[in-house]
Amino acid sequence: MYVFTILVSTSKAVNEFQFLNNLRDKYSLDKVGDDCAVLPKDAESDMLLTCDMLVEDIDFRLEWTPPASLGHKALAVSLSDIAAMGGTPKWAMLSLGVPEHLWRSGYIDEFYAGWFALASQFGVELAGGDISRVPDKLFIDSVAGGEVPRGKATMRSGAKPFDAIYVTGSLGGAAGGLKMLERGSEKTRDSPISTADLIHKLLKPAPQLTRAKLLQSLGVANSMIDISDGLSSDLFHICHQSGVGASIVAEKLPINTDLAGFFNTQQSLDMALHGGEDFELLFTVDKKNISLIESVPATCIGEITDTGFIELIRNGDSEKLEPRGYRHF
Amino acid sequence: MYVFTILVSTSKAVNEFQFLNNLRDKYSLDKVGDDCAVLPKDAESDMLLTCDMLVEDIDFRLEWTPPASLGHKALAVSLSDIAAMGGTPKWAMLSLGVPEHLWRSGYIDEFYAGWFALASQFGVELAGGDISRVPDKLFIDSVAGGEVPRGKATMRSGAKPFDAIYVTGSLGGAAGGLKMLERGSEKTRDSPISTADLIHKLLKPAPQLTRAKLLQSLGVANSMIDISDGLSSDLFHICHQSGVGASIVAEKLPINTDLAGFFNTQQSLDMALHGGEDFELLFTVDKKNISLIESVPATCIGEITDTGFIELIRNGDSEKLEPRGYRHF
Repeated sequence: MYVFTILVSTSKAVNEFQFLNNLRDKYSLDKVGDDCAVLPKDAESDMLLTCDMLVEDIDFRLEWTPPASLGHKALAVSLSDIAAMGGTPKWAMLSLGVPEHLWRSGYIDEFYAGWFALASQFGVELAGGDISRVPDKLFIDSVAGGEVPRGKATMRSGAKPFDAIYVTGSLGGAAGGLKMLERGSEKTRDSPISTADLIHKLLKPAPQLTRAKLLQSLGVANSMIDISDGLSSDLFHICHQSGVGASIVAEKLPINTDLAGFFNTQQSLDMALHGGEDFELLFTVDKKNISLIESVPATCIGEITDTGFIELIRNGDSEKLEPRGYRHF
Repeated sequence: MYVFTILVSTSKAVNEFQFLNNLRDKYSLDKVGDDCAVLPKDAESDMLLTCDMLVEDIDFRLEWTPPASLGHKALAVSLSDIAAMGGTPKWAMLSLGVPEHLWRSGYIDEFYAGWFALASQFGVELAGGDISRVPDKLFIDSVAGGEVPRGKATMRSGAKPFDAIYVTGSLGGAAGGLKMLERGSEKTRDSPISTADLIHKLLKPAPQLTRAKLLQSLGVANSMIDISDGLSSDLFHICHQSGVGASIVAEKLPINTDLAGFFNTQQSLDMALHGGEDFELLFTVDKKNISLIESVPATCIGEITDTGFIELIRNGDSEKLEPRGYRHF
C-alpha cells in the first residue's frame, strides 16, 4: 500500500511520504495510509484491499532471486498487509511487466508456481491481473483482498499510551540475508546453514496470518502494522498515526540469532532496528490484557508513551530513535 | 484484466493468450478471462474487480501524452472494464513506478489531477496503491472495483446464435488519432479540429458507464465486452467464449466520421475493424428484445451465428475476418 516503498528525496521534490500526505489532504482520502484500505462489504464483514509493487533492481535482483521465490514474495508482501489489519486473505490479482528475455526463458512459469504454492496454503484465489511486455526490467504489482469482522480491522492509529509493544518472530534476518547476498555468499555452495536461513528470510518471507488471526479473535491489539520498512520506521508510523510516542529496550529485541555468526553486536542491532522486509507483526496491547495474549508467540519490546517521539533504552541509557527504515537504494 | 495486452509471440514461447489459457487450466482459475472478475459481495450485489497496466513506450509515449490525460486514461481503461460487465465503479487503487526525472518535474501532480477529475465524475474513491522509483520508464497499474446486482454481470460468454450485435459510439477514432500522432500532426498548432478530436479519442477515452448502466437496468444484453483490442479481436473473444460465430456488415459499421478527412476508405475500415482503444461497448441482444433497447444509443452491425467463425459482409461479398487487434508494438 501507499507509504511503503520510499522514493529517494531530492532537494527539488518532496519525498513520497510528503507527496502522499499532500495527496491525502488535497483529495480527502480517508482510506489511504494504513496497511490496507478498509471498505464495507456486508453486514458481518469489511473488505481489506492492498497493493504492492516490486521492481527489478529496486526491490529485487534477478541473479539473487529464484523465480519461484519471487512469485512467493510478490504474494507474501500483500498477505502480510492483510495480516497487519487482523484480516483473512480471500483473493488476489497479479500484474506483470515482463521483458522478452524472461518471457522466453520459462521464468514466468516458475514465478507463478511459487505464487500459487503460497496462495493455496492460505486459500487465496487468483481473480485476475494483466501481463504486458516491458522494454527492460521486470516489474510486479500485487493486489490482494481480504476480510475482517465488521469494524474490527486493527489500524495503525489505535495505540494508547502505556500499551505494551510486541513483535512476532525475530528481527534483522532479511537485512542480514541481503548483506550476505551483497557479499557474494550465495555463490558459496557450502555456506553455513545460517547463511541460507538469513537469505531465506529475505527471499521467502512468511506472512504472519495465523498469528494475526489469533490476535483478531482475541480482540486485544489496539494497533498493528507489519514490519516491511524496518522496526524504527514502522513503529514511527504507529506513533505518528496514533499521536503517541514509544520507548523500546535494545536488550529486549528478538534479534535474529543467525546474525551473530556474521555481524558484530552493533551491526546486528542496527539490522534489527532499521532493516526492513522481516514481515513480522508489530502490535500494541493494553497492559491489563497482556495475560490474554500468552497464546500468541511474540516478544514484548517496550511500551507506548505520551512523549511524541521514540526512545531507545540501551544499557540503561536513553537515546532518541529516528525512523531510518531499510532502503533498497 | 488478463487477456488485454498482447505480448509479441515468438517461436520460442507461447503468446500471452496461450499462456493465460494454460494458467487457467493448470490452476483451475474460473474468475479469469472476462473484463472483470466477479466475486460475491453481499445479498444484493456481486463485486467486480479489474487490473490494467500501462507502460511507457508500450502503451503510451510521454511526448504525446499530457500528464492529466494519462491520469484520466489510466482510470478510464479500468472503468471501461467495469462498464463491460454492466457494473457501477466504486473504488480504485493506483500503483505507479516513477522515474526520477518525472518525480521532480511535477508530472505526477498533474497525472493525479487528471485521475481525480475522472474519478469524481463517477464517484470513484481512491482506496490505495503504491509508488516506487523505477530506473527508466513510467509504468502504471490501475485497479478498480465495482458492483453489479447479484448474478447479473454481463459476461463475454453469454452470446446466443441469432443475437443482434451492437456497438456504442463510433469505431477507429483512437487508431486514427495514433496515426496522426505518428505522422507528427500534433505539432501543427493549426491542425483541423477533426485531428484534435481523433487524438482526443486516443488520449482521453470516455468509459461508457452510463450506457452500460442503462443496458444493465434493461437486462437484455446476453453478452458484452469493451473494445480495447479492436472490434475483430473483441468480437472474437465473445464468439470464442460463447462457442458461437458472428456475421458483421462493413457498411453498417459506425466508422468515426473524422477519419474520412485523413484516410482512404480501406484504411478507415481497417481502423474500425482492428484499431483498439476506442473503449466503446460491444454487446449482443436477443432479436425479440431489440425494441427494448431503443433508448440506448448504439448501432446494430450484424448478428451472432452458429458457424464458429467471424464473417465480414462487404459489398454483398463474404470473407472470413481474423482477429487482428491493434497492437502497440
